[in-house]
Amino acid sequence: MDHVVVMAGGSGTRFWPESRMRRSKQFLDLTGRGSMIRETIRRMFPLLRRENVWVVACEKDAPHLSARALGIPAGNILLEPEGRNTAPAMALAVAHIAARDPAAVIAAAPADHAVADERSFRSVLRKCFRLARRTGRFVTVGITPTYPATGYGYIERGTPFAAGGDAVYNVRRFREKPDLPTARRFLKSGRFSWNSGIFFFRIDTFRDRFARFLPGIHAEMESAFRHSGKKTFPARLRAAYRRIPSISVDYGILEKEDNILVVPSDFGWNDLGTWRSLHEFLGKPGENVAFGNVLLSDCRDSLVRSDHGLVAVVGMEDVVVIRCGDAVLVCDRTRSEEVKGIAEEVRARFPHLS
Amino acid sequence: MDHVVVMAGGSGTRFWPESRMRRSKQFLDLTGRGSMIRETIRRMFPLLRRENVWVVACEKDAPHLSARALGIPAGNILLEPEGRNTAPAMALAVAHIAARDPAAVIAAAPADHAVADERSFRSVLRKCFRLARRTGRFVTVGITPTYPATGYGYIERGTPFAAGGDAVYNVRRFREKPDLPTARRFLKSGRFSWNSGIFFFRIDTFRDRFARFLPGIHAEMESAFRHSGKKTFPARLRAAYRRIPSISVDYGILEKEDNILVVPSDFGWNDLGTWRSLHEFLGKPGENVAFGNVLLSDCRDSLVRSDHGLVAVVGMEDVVVIRCGDAVLVCDRTRSEEVKGIAEEVRARFPHLS
Repeated sequence: MDHVVVMAGGSGTRFWPESRMRRSKQFLDLTGRGSMIRETIRRMFPLLRRENVWVVACEKDAPHLSARALGIPAGNILLEPEGRNTAPAMALAVAHIAARDPAAVIAAAPADHAVADERSFRSVLRKCFRLARRTGRFVTVGITPTYPATGYGYIERGTPFAAGGDAVYNVRRFREKPDLPTARRFLKSGRFSWNSGIFFFRIDTFRDRFARFLPGIHAEMESAFRHSGKKTFPARLRAAYRRIPSISVDYGILEKEDNILVVPSDFGWNDLGTWRSLHEFLGKPGENVAFGNVLLSDCRDSLVRSDHGLVAVVGMEDVVVIRCGDAVLVCDRTRSEEVKGIAEEVRARFPHLS
Repeated sequence: MDHVVVMAGGSGTRFWPESRMRRSKQFLDLTGRGSMIRETIRRMFPLLRRENVWVVACEKDAPHLSARALGIPAGNILLEPEGRNTAPAMALAVAHIAARDPAAVIAAAPADHAVADERSFRSVLRKCFRLARRTGRFVTVGITPTYPATGYGYIERGTPFAAGGDAVYNVRRFREKPDLPTARRFLKSGRFSWNSGIFFFRIDTFRDRFARFLPGIHAEMESAFRHSGKKTFPARLRAAYRRIPSISVDYGILEKEDNILVVPSDFGWNDLGTWRSLHEFLGKPGENVAFGNVLLSDCRDSLVRSDHGLVAVVGMEDVVVIRCGDAVLVCDRTRSEEVKGIAEEVRARFPHLS
């Protein structure tokens, strides 16, 4: 059967002041449609049974995770004692899914991305599930780039994978976030996709590569999993997590693996990494995007959100104004990347307000 | 004796969101030194006895007027039933002062202006008191313009008033707020001062001109004043105010009077008419001015105020950010004039928040 594991362990600060210490991006309603994680799950439902949708998150985020609100069984919410990036998270999910469905094919998906064209998104997913099942390979979803982004990783494609049907390629290599000249070169070459962070695999493939590429973590987790179902399991898992390092599936497994496939796609994907990308996802160039009691007078290209009271903006262009609780952010839209640093400075200088 | 009447009847909206319906500019602490009215009075004290400092304001503002906080006798706070601009206000003050000191010379001063060089300010006041006493003329204080302002009225000077000593002139005429080309011409000619709104007169002069130029209002108020000291006075005054029109001393008397004198001065005067002028009064060009818990990252020429919580501003130039109660204003600094219109729009669209 096909399963999805939604990876909800992140703790973003780029959406300060909305993403305070106590609430990470995946639990925010940035688009006005619902929290990112709920939207991520809702998009999958036409493809999958609810029992086959899983969430991995940190224990500390449990208060934000209502199985009822998410529409999945309570047992499908898997909690890690603390965050160790995606490789341990995925190993935990695979162990749970294997216990029920050893022949599963799994799609791993970040909990905090947005998709404009859901129909096309689901047809890509269907294709990737089939590919992963048939080939036993890791299958990644690439996004056709529209500008020389420096904030995304890239996937370089090699030869076409003939047996995959239309538009499936062997991955030549993964590239970290590039500088601007490199990003321009990538865009021009036509051989690069953005890495969406969505990937597919069969359980047998994952287990084999996890044991081979991350043997230390594998051993720690296997030793904890031997207590699975027993009273001692939570303490064992906690002990294992204290010892294992943070490492992503991308870095720990995919970059070491040959024979990965990429399916270049175009379904209006946006990782909503900054206030700027949220603005670009929600509005056309030149447009303002506003949430809450907001009064805009002669503004352009601005994003304004107010969770209470009133925000009035006069004669501004390219500005982001976010009011959340007792904090207000006013930021040049093109400098949204700097919000992360500001959030850290706030935490240091005004700890009671962060 | 010399007296000052501080005119505190205004109700500004250009400092929204700080100046809500319930609190006008003269009662705000815009500079961080104290409310405008308290500062106005404090500046006068080295010149005058406390008993000779008077305030005229509207009844509705009584909660903001503590004689103790202002440092003057309670009987020196004169309340009008409602606002009718400065001519009726001044007539009311003159009637009270005349009852105690019929030979008084009075300086009328707006309650909401700022002065950078107080020593020089007081020496100008001393000179004007002497001039008004000796000549029996109205004496106005002109401010040497530093740029072609379109937000101020201007005073054009005529011939020097030889008997007045250094730098006293006959007023040629008053000019309303000009357009920009006219303001440039004024500045270039060297013959124009900004009208500070501060003027001096002897009681006998004021009474004579008030009766001559505003006979209708004079008659109404005289008829009320005949009940002065009696229980019936408040009701009579209220009835008179309902019938008399709003009119300023400038428009109703000074513009009709010949033989007015002007003393061109330069004591760092600022009417703090907008957030921009407050910024210019408090900071040097390029500087930021911040009040409250404010975090500025790579900003220039900006004014940021927060009455609670935290405001963070990133990468902005020429911006005004004001957070007061449940309202937040973000405004291009050079368009601060538009805040008045915004305040009116807020009042119409969000009446519970204005």
